[in-house]
Amino acid sequence: MNYGMIRFLLFRVVQITGLLMLLPLVTALIYHETLCIIVFMAISVSCLVAGAIGVSFKPANVALYAREGFVVTALTWIIISMIGALPFTLTGVTKSYVDALFETISGLTTTGSTILSNVEMYMSVQFWRCFTHWIGGMGVLVFILAIMPMSGGYSMHLMRAESPGPSVGKFVPKVRETAKILYLIYFGITLTQVILLLFTGLNLYEALVTTFATVGTGGFGITNAGIGAFNTPSQIVITVFMILCGINFSVYYYLITMRPKEALKNDEVKLYLALMFGSATIIAILIYRANITATPFESFHHSLFSVVSVMTTTGFATLDFNTWPQFARTLLALLMLFGACAGSTGGGFKLSRVLILLKAIKNELIYIVHPKSVKRVYMDGQPVETTVVKSVSAYLSMYVIIFIVSTLIVSADGFDYETNFTSVAATLNNIGPGLGMVGPTGNFAHFSVLSKFVLMFDMLAGRLELLPMLILFSPDTWSKR
Amino acid sequence: MNYGMIRFLLFRVVQITGLLMLLPLVTALIYHETLCIIVFMAISVSCLVAGAIGVSFKPANVALYAREGFVVTALTWIIISMIGALPFTLTGVTKSYVDALFETISGLTTTGSTILSNVEMYMSVQFWRCFTHWIGGMGVLVFILAIMPMSGGYSMHLMRAESPGPSVGKFVPKVRETAKILYLIYFGITLTQVILLLFTGLNLYEALVTTFATVGTGGFGITNAGIGAFNTPSQIVITVFMILCGINFSVYYYLITMRPKEALKNDEVKLYLALMFGSATIIAILIYRANITATPFESFHHSLFSVVSVMTTTGFATLDFNTWPQFARTLLALLMLFGACAGSTGGGFKLSRVLILLKAIKNELIYIVHPKSVKRVYMDGQPVETTVVKSVSAYLSMYVIIFIVSTLIVSADGFDYETNFTSVAATLNNIGPGLGMVGPTGNFAHFSVLSKFVLMFDMLAGRLELLPMLILFSPDTWSKR
Repeated sequence: MNYGMIRFLLFRVVQITGLLMLLPLVTALIYHETLCIIVFMAISVSCLVAGAIGVSFKPANVALYAREGFVVTALTWIIISMIGALPFTLTGVTKSYVDALFETISGLTTTGSTILSNVEMYMSVQFWRCFTHWIGGMGVLVFILAIMPMSGGYSMHLMRAESPGPSVGKFVPKVRETAKILYLIYFGITLTQVILLLFTGLNLYEALVTTFATVGTGGFGITNAGIGAFNTPSQIVITVFMILCGINFSVYYYLITMRPKEALKNDEVKLYLALMFGSATIIAILIYRANITATPFESFHHSLFSVVSVMTTTGFATLDFNTWPQFARTLLALLMLFGACAGSTGGGFKLSRVLILLKAIKNELIYIVHPKSVKRVYMDGQPVETTVVKSVSAYLSMYVIIFIVSTLIVSADGFDYETNFTSVAATLNNIGPGLGMVGPTGNFAHFSVLSKFVLMFDMLAGRLELLPMLILFSPDTWSKR
Repeated sequence: MNYGMIRFLLFRVVQITGLLMLLPLVTALIYHETLCIIVFMAISVSCLVAGAIGVSFKPANVALYAREGFVVTALTWIIISMIGALPFTLTGVTKSYVDALFETISGLTTTGSTILSNVEMYMSVQFWRCFTHWIGGMGVLVFILAIMPMSGGYSMHLMRAESPGPSVGKFVPKVRETAKILYLIYFGITLTQVILLLFTGLNLYEALVTTFATVGTGGFGITNAGIGAFNTPSQIVITVFMILCGINFSVYYYLITMRPKEALKNDEVKLYLALMFGSATIIAILIYRANITATPFESFHHSLFSVVSVMTTTGFATLDFNTWPQFARTLLALLMLFGACAGSTGGGFKLSRVLILLKAIKNELIYIVHPKSVKRVYMDGQPVETTVVKSVSAYLSMYVIIFIVSTLIVSADGFDYETNFTSVAATLNNIGPGLGMVGPTGNFAHFSVLSKFVLMFDMLAGRLELLPMLILFSPDTWSKR
């Protein structure tokens, strides 16, 4: 294990965190929030100084292999969460540091689960809360890779550990260029949404924080009333940008570089859009027939908003879909688990994994009937490597086991099945609200400290796609060989 | 596809069904149940005649490959269920043929879910109901293999398609001998339990039907009060025999043939017993501390009974564990999903699959950290073939997908999440009762016909370990190539 390089990178993370804190500091200055000015200033300066000292000692060896890549990624997210939680405790928004940590991890992992019963707070802390969605959406290390030169060419291991999906595509040979392109697209989408939201009547502050929560597919709201209180044009803009951010960003890269053919070849995006519009149509018919919505347009608007919100695991709501027909509710719950596309800011299991598993099952059935025929799994017209199929299968097993163990530990708090089961589902899939006590009108405050730590682990494991967190806690990782 | 051979085997199944119906006929004669005498006599004679005619036309080609093996297995279970349902409708015990079919499939697959609110009925129909557990426990085709000579040596494909577990061990080179040994052990266990139950004070009828439900790990009860009304010695005997029937029968073969070393090498059985006694101890402490049971002995007795009942997916209950502490309830629910050992009469996902997946995850984590080290999965000190690991992974995917699709269809009936989710879990794992409307005090009568067919499919898929049912409905199976 290259401890020197790990230390070096983690101090870079501290430095970046200090930089990111400048934005809420500016917000605090604008709104004259004295306590917040002091808090953000103190954290920012401490981070910048500590970071600068830490990175001034260059590591002797810059080699970084898969193992270090996963460990650095896990530790990066833990450190930025620990620092990011400080504003919540120091300003008294949360009752304890554990609650602050929960809220920050929920923000960074774009989960959107909250321990707060009242989300109306200091403007600058609110800004920071929603800004964590934006940071976490594309990833902290991808950001560092984009803005800082990395010598040695080992940065691929960092990229791979932080990016969602069964396999990471580099658009261009250089990892740094890929990271830059990703952030440029992300920035472009963010800016466009802010401008459009301003046109629909939101003020700059509202437009900014809502955009952070949308493009990060996080789902933190800034008012207790939520998105339901926004006007229809705003809701339509939010719908469109949730859809866009649930798509694999490689599609945008191909579109920008004038390769529409390659963009259209993506099987996962086709499944994503088909599932989305298919489900939205079915649910629209159901809620229209159940007289929940008055006009066909309204039915489709609210249905699509809900479907998009759950598929991208954002967690916004215009209507409380818990009152909808059971088939609609179940369909929404299942779409949550599947999640969005790999390489997007959305969470969940990822549709490409679902596709690979479905194709692997089909091949297995054919293999049993015709043992001599050995077939490969194809995606986007290309054969998928058998190691990827194996990894995806192992991913499902890990996912199920983490789910089971978490549910068992959380159950010790004595709440009902629905609350326990959906609190784990909502955090592990980075969805946000669950059902029962953790439903859209409830929150996660009632859990014990142990359960909160389990759910925080689940949020991080879900965002980082299990491996970094599991490798961090695997004894084999730390063995000397 | 060798249709001649399929036809021949299915008529054999009809013949055997006619033979099996003679036992409830005798019961009807003993208890002077006139209607039942006519019904069982009519079915039995029709089956014997039709079967005899059908098998008199020998197939030209006796070759039977994997594909035919799975198809015959699936069709065998469907046919015996369709005939086995007749006594329930013809005697008026169930309201419709669909309900009768549900009850029969539940019996044969050793699920134990019921559509009846009152299980006290004609003695002979009750006998047949519990006897289906005994038939299904070890398998219909294994029975045919045991009693009838099969020319051609292709019988392995039948054995493999019907036996539970990721890989089938033949004790002896000849499949017929293996099937015979399995049924001899099964018969020995059955006889021993009947004698022991007679000693604890049950009459012969009670002892017989209770034993059928125990050794098949089915769980149908003969009184509305259930096993809770039995005395403690009877409950202890039932506990012991549930434990015995959840163990891989190869262990008994090794013990009988004086190879205790081989019997002790079984990793799955070790995990089974460790999980069982570990969980029972934890739950005993919890319910003792919650003052649910008066003495430490009682606590352990009821705790062990419940743990054994859910792990073997029998579904018997001495106490209603829905009133126990949530941690105990969750632990029991999870143990249900894992199920018992491969090669036993128990259901569920099977512990050997859990073990293989856990070991595959461990190897995957090691592989990511040390990409040059390629490790194999070991079970019982032997390396597991990579195709088996692949099949087990595919099994998990298929299991999850069948679960999801079934839950979605069942949700159209409009019941709550808990009812829908646990009705699928209870049938797919061959457990019996679920929670909510299908809890131990409820039943499955309220579902629509469509949902009932989905749950019947799930019960058959669960008992036959998914593949035969999926292959039966896969278009590729029926393609000419």
